[in-house]
This record gives sequence, C-alpha cells and structure tokens, in this order.
Amino acid sequence: MDVISVIRTKRDRGRLTDEQIDWVIDAYTRGEVADEQMSALAMAILLNGMDRAEIARWTAAMIASGERMDFAALPRPTADKHSTGGVGDKITLPLAPLVAACGAAVPQLSGRGLGHTGGTLDKLESIPGWRALLSNDEMMNVLRDVGAVICAAGDGLAPADKKLYALRDVTGTVEAIPLIASSIMSKKIAEGTGSLVLDVKVGSGAFMKNLDDARELASTMVGLGSDHGVRTVALLTDMSTPLGLTAGNALEVRESVEVLAGGGPADVVELTLALAREMLTAAGLPDADPERALKDGSAMDHWRRMITAQGGDPDATLPVARERHVVTADASGVLTELDAYAVGVAAWRLGAGRARKEDPVQAGAGIELHAKPGDPVTAGQPLLTLHTDTPERFPYALQALAGGVTVGPAGTAFSPRPIVLDRIS
Amino acid sequence: MDVISVIRTKRDRGRLTDEQIDWVIDAYTRGEVADEQMSALAMAILLNGMDRAEIARWTAAMIASGERMDFAALPRPTADKHSTGGVGDKITLPLAPLVAACGAAVPQLSGRGLGHTGGTLDKLESIPGWRALLSNDEMMNVLRDVGAVICAAGDGLAPADKKLYALRDVTGTVEAIPLIASSIMSKKIAEGTGSLVLDVKVGSGAFMKNLDDARELASTMVGLGSDHGVRTVALLTDMSTPLGLTAGNALEVRESVEVLAGGGPADVVELTLALAREMLTAAGLPDADPERALKDGSAMDHWRRMITAQGGDPDATLPVARERHVVTADASGVLTELDAYAVGVAAWRLGAGRARKEDPVQAGAGIELHAKPGDPVTAGQPLLTLHTDTPERFPYALQALAGGVTVGPAGTAFSPRPIVLDRIS
Repeated sequence: MDVISVIRTKRDRGRLTDEQIDWVIDAYTRGEVADEQMSALAMAILLNGMDRAEIARWTAAMIASGERMDFAALPRPTADKHSTGGVGDKITLPLAPLVAACGAAVPQLSGRGLGHTGGTLDKLESIPGWRALLSNDEMMNVLRDVGAVICAAGDGLAPADKKLYALRDVTGTVEAIPLIASSIMSKKIAEGTGSLVLDVKVGSGAFMKNLDDARELASTMVGLGSDHGVRTVALLTDMSTPLGLTAGNALEVRESVEVLAGGGPADVVELTLALAREMLTAAGLPDADPERALKDGSAMDHWRRMITAQGGDPDATLPVARERHVVTADASGVLTELDAYAVGVAAWRLGAGRARKEDPVQAGAGIELHAKPGDPVTAGQPLLTLHTDTPERFPYALQALAGGVTVGPAGTAFSPRPIVLDRIS
Repeated sequence: MDVISVIRTKRDRGRLTDEQIDWVIDAYTRGEVADEQMSALAMAILLNGMDRAEIARWTAAMIASGERMDFAALPRPTADKHSTGGVGDKITLPLAPLVAACGAAVPQLSGRGLGHTGGTLDKLESIPGWRALLSNDEMMNVLRDVGAVICAAGDGLAPADKKLYALRDVTGTVEAIPLIASSIMSKKIAEGTGSLVLDVKVGSGAFMKNLDDARELASTMVGLGSDHGVRTVALLTDMSTPLGLTAGNALEVRESVEVLAGGGPADVVELTLALAREMLTAAGLPDADPERALKDGSAMDHWRRMITAQGGDPDATLPVARERHVVTADASGVLTELDAYAVGVAAWRLGAGRARKEDPVQAGAGIELHAKPGDPVTAGQPLLTLHTDTPERFPYALQALAGGVTVGPAGTAFSPRPIVLDRIS
C-alpha cells in the first residue's frame, strides 16, 4: 500500500477500498503518511466526494484509531446531542440537566469555540470554579450521581480525527460533507452513547448555508449512526439569526439559567424542548415530560448539582465586561434582519471567541439583543448592547455588524422562519 | 493575504488574482505557507484548472523566486531544447553538439531520471571523468569555447519550482497540466535562452498518454514562452515504443556516438535532425545544414570537445554490465508491439533508473532491442538483451516486460506511427 496510489484513486474519481481507507487513516495517525499527503487527499475528497460505504469505513477507521467509552454499566439509558454550531447556541447548557431530570444519562463531551461560533466549554468556564477537564472516573461519577455531565473529550477518543481536523482547519478542507460527517460521528460513536440527536444548523451563522447541504450532512450522519448501532435522529434548525437574546460566554450562561428557571426567550425554550423530546424518545423514554421538568424546578436542580459536581458555584456572580456600547435603530419601522453571521463575528471580535486555538476568551464579552427580526422598532431605540473588556475592539465589531442589521419601513411584510425546519431519522 | 482564502478561491472554481499568486509563491518559497497548505492548493489546481493568465502569472512568480541567467554577452544566438521525458530518449546527447556545430549556442541545463524515464545527466555520467556540476563561470566558458554545454541546473534558478516539484512528487499532484507547464517553463525562461524547442512525448512511455493532453500541454508552454519573449515551438513526438535500440545510461551514450558518427538508428537520426532544424530556425539560423554536420564530422568534433571540457574522456571505454539475459521470440511472425512503458520500467528495475532521488544508478544497466515494431521475427531469435550488475533483478525486469512484447502471425498488418506527430508554434 502506498499513499500516492490512494491519493490518485480519489483524485481520479475512483472509490477508495476498505483496505486503502484503513491503511491511510492508520498510517496518518502513526505519522507514516505526512500532513502534505493527507491534505492533498482531503482536497480530493472535498472535490470528488465519497459514497456512503466509503464514509462509513472512513468513520470506522477513525473510531478504531483510539479508545471507546462504554456506559453499559449505568442504570439509565444514555442520550447525547451534537450541534454543528451556531451563534447564541447555548442549548446544551439547559438541555443536558433537563434531559437528566427526565431520566436519561447525558454524557455531553463538548468543545471550545473557534471563529464566529461559541464553544460550550468556553461558556461554562465563565462560572467561577467550574472545570471542563475531568478524568474518566470523575466523569463517570458525575454522570452516575447527577445524570448529566458536560466536559472536554479526552485525547484518547478518535485521535485520527483530532489530527485530521487540525490539518483541515489550515488547508481549506473543512467544508467537505464526508469529512464533516465522519469527524462528528467518529467522536460521538467512540464516546459510546446509545442514542444521539443531531442539531444541524442552517443559515448565515451556520456551517451549512442552505437546506440541501444541511439535509445531505444530516442524512449522512444519521446513516453513520445507524450503521454503528447508535439510534440517531437529526433536526435541521434555523441559524439565520442568533438563538435567544445573547451571544457571548457569561451572557449565554445567564440566559440558560433563565430558561432553567422557567423563563427565557421563546426560541431557546422551543428548541431546548424539541431536542429534549427527541433525546428522550431516542433513549426509550417517550413518556417523559421535559416541559414539566422546566416548570417544577427539577431541571434547575440538576443544573446546580452538575455545576457543583464539576467545581463550579451555581450562585456565584458571573463576570461582566468592563465596557459597553449601545447600537440604536437609525429609523423607525420593523427589524427585518439581524444576521447571525454578522452578530457572531462581532461577538468574536469583542473577545467572546478566538481566532487561534491557543487564544484566551473574555468571559464577559459578547452581544445582547434588544429586538428580534419581526419586532417593531423606533428610531433611537437600543437594538444591541456590545460588551467587552477591550473597548478598542468596538470599531471592529461595528464593522462586522455593518449590513447585518436592517430596519424596514413600518408595515414591511415579515414572515418569521420556524426554528425547526426539518427532521431526518 | 491569507493562504486559506487563496486555497478556497481555487477550490471553489474561482480565478486566482495576480496578487494571490505572487503572494502564495513567495510565501511558500520563504516557508510561510506550509507544505500541507501548498499540496491542498496543488490538488485544487489539478482538479479545477487554471486559465492562461493564471498560468502565466504563476510561471512569472516562480521565475521571480530566484535568479535569471543572461547569455546576451555570447556572440551566438542561444537555442535550448526540453523533452518531457521518454524511454530511450538520448536525443539531447547528439543534438546539443550538432546544433552548436551549426552555429547556435546550446546551454542545456538538464536533470536526472526518476522512475521509468532516464535522465540526461545520468547517461553522461557513465563517461569516465565527466562532471555535471559546473559553476556559472565554468558553464559560460564551455558554452563560449565549444558552443554547447550539458550540465545540472544551479540551485538559484526558480527555487519555488524546485520546492513545489518535490512536493508534487509525494502528494499525487504531478499530473496537472498548468503545474507541469509552469514548472518546465519557469526553469527554461530563468535559464535565459533566446529560443526554445519543446519535445512533448506522447504514448505509453510518456507522461502524456494521449494526443489531446499533449497538445494542451504543448500549447500552454508555447504560449508561456511567447509571453516571456522566448521564441518557442513544440514538436509532439511518438513515445509508444522506445527511441532507438537502447534504454540505459552507457548503452544510450554508445548509441548517441553512433549517430554523431553518421550512423545510428533511423528514428533517433530523424528526431535529432527534426529538433535541430527547429532549434536552428528559432535561433535565426534557418539555412544551417545539420544533416551535413552529422556527415562531415563537425558534430562529432563538438561532442568530443564538450565532453573533454567537462572533464570526460571521449575515448574511454564505457562501463559494461556484469550480467546479461536474452529474451527471445516465442513464435515466428511480426513484432507488433514493444511497449515503451514496459521497457522503461524493466530498464529501471535492472538498475538504470532510480525510485528515489538519492538512489544511485548503474552505468551499464539497461536494455538493448534487437527488433523494432513492424520487423519480421523468427521463433527463438533474440528480441531483447537485458543488462545489469545485479542479476537477482532479472525476474522483476521480466515481470515488467510481460504483456509489453507482442509477436503477431506473419502477414499481420502493421502501420508504423510517424516519429513527429504534430507541431505547435
């Protein structure tokens, strides 16, 4: 087996054999296949595609590159959720304790943010004392005691994916559906969950800009899950405008706690409940009532125990940014557009996100929204409040927002997009 | 400027701007753009192509990455020749002294062989004492005194190409016409010749397997030459069967000397004269008579002076391989096929070529042909003699030849392919 013949096969629009896939993933993990060879292969895959059987084998080879977790010893069925990433997407925070409160175990291994989308671990780290890094034993203990844990994935899971993901990030080969699907699913399957709900975001603030691509990605991932015995379902959800009224780390924790207290923005509550119902059904608990668990305080109780079990203080005051800048409406009428990508980039520039993996994030930075698309607005009324510790960044954030906030004349027709656009199982 | 946006432009079928091309070539040469990024870009170029203006700018950027030679001080017009590589292609050896004998100056910067095609420098190094590595001053002196020099290209010419060529070699991105054309032409233009004749090989033993691809490569290179003020013409020539009756280093030197002595195989003489006429015409010497220069000994005289000037002894006995193996015809009839690729790979396995740049070659190894396609043969008659110092390689060479030598029944219709298939200017 030699790498050039593998690259040529895909370059010339051929099918990779099982042997070629197993060999190239293993050889790349061991360092025998060099980065410059794998990136050429990744570009050929991006441009020429892989069929379902190739993607399944590629995923299996990445799973086989590392260890697998096993939750069979838990007394509850496991349910996991993965979002492809969006702006203001704090859903994991209320969702994990909510689903745990309804009887499933939620082993939520999460990541950090890169670029304009936030990361769940970055958000939770704004809670004083909270730790993302747990040993396997600690993780199992939290899961057994509380029913939900949100922590960083260990280095042992799908190391081939870890290496390939970092390579794709610097070689313009991120946007390949076979590679995205196998990257997500190899990690999720290696994590050992029994069921999985995918939240595939669609729109300007998402990775997938249109419904067709999102549907292809979702079907590919649902197929991969089923092939590996994980009950998998995907919701396609709107990401044309931010979720809820906040984008930023501590800002989103605050909003999540509002949801757990029975309040919070309608879209966040709606999506949290929709995903909770899917997770509970997939976990074999179709009669659970997540709406009641939000109202009766049991979801909040699980949140507080989960945060405490990971060293955090659920009653601590959350960090607040040192400086604020208010963006007001320049005309009266209807807010017709509040673009998710523009808000995401602006929040990132304010310090909520990072450009490189090693950059720190500001816990207090981000954006509060005072109106959502469809709302009537009056000239001079606050639309957004920008938060940062580094006010020299305000101009860059305002630049990112330019063109992303549109006020139409009063009476402009506006048809809101539903949150859940489609369901694939 | 950032490399990911450059890669994405080409990945998404866009045109690279002049600024993107200049930047990426310069940044790659300086090491700011990493190998894994350049190989992803090379794969995107291979699959999505570049237009003529992009190729021209890419070539110019590679030329600008290093120094340029200048032959303006020479009293003679300069003429250079480049072959895309074939089996038994020793034409440079008789051609350079022949064209010099007719009044042009031939600064022939050549390379070593890799894979199944031989390298001009490897062939000449079978002459005891001959040196491929000359300083710029030595090269100019030989050129001024003899009119022809064949030597290794210095490291200073188109260093971007040198780096990119090595990268393409290990990443399955060699076979991209824009990259092949710009690689060849950046070196040839940097070498500073006034006119250039390209010998673009077509057939099983060549890089280009079909006439359409060869024509596209030839047109691209002729266009690049003209854009840079180099009078450029291309001949498309047959490489379905080896040129002449030898493939190997010392074996080909011996055959070249026969041609210079007024003899030699008809196809080698025909192609040498066709290329000589093109070079002399391009150099502004259309009335020169290369046929006479072969007959009257002046070409041989220039050969002897050129070899001597580079430390070689033109009268030395050439190395002979220690072992021989004769392949005979297994039936009587007509030799209908003697496949160039099969012979090239067999000669390579016998030790005439190298698999990796750092491998040595055997001076005496190679193959002698005792018949050419179209010749009548008798069962048991010798068809090929294999030469090597390492007889344990005979089985591998015979394996490579399997299926490449075909004898048809007596009377089988055979229409020989012409040597020169097309001309592009």
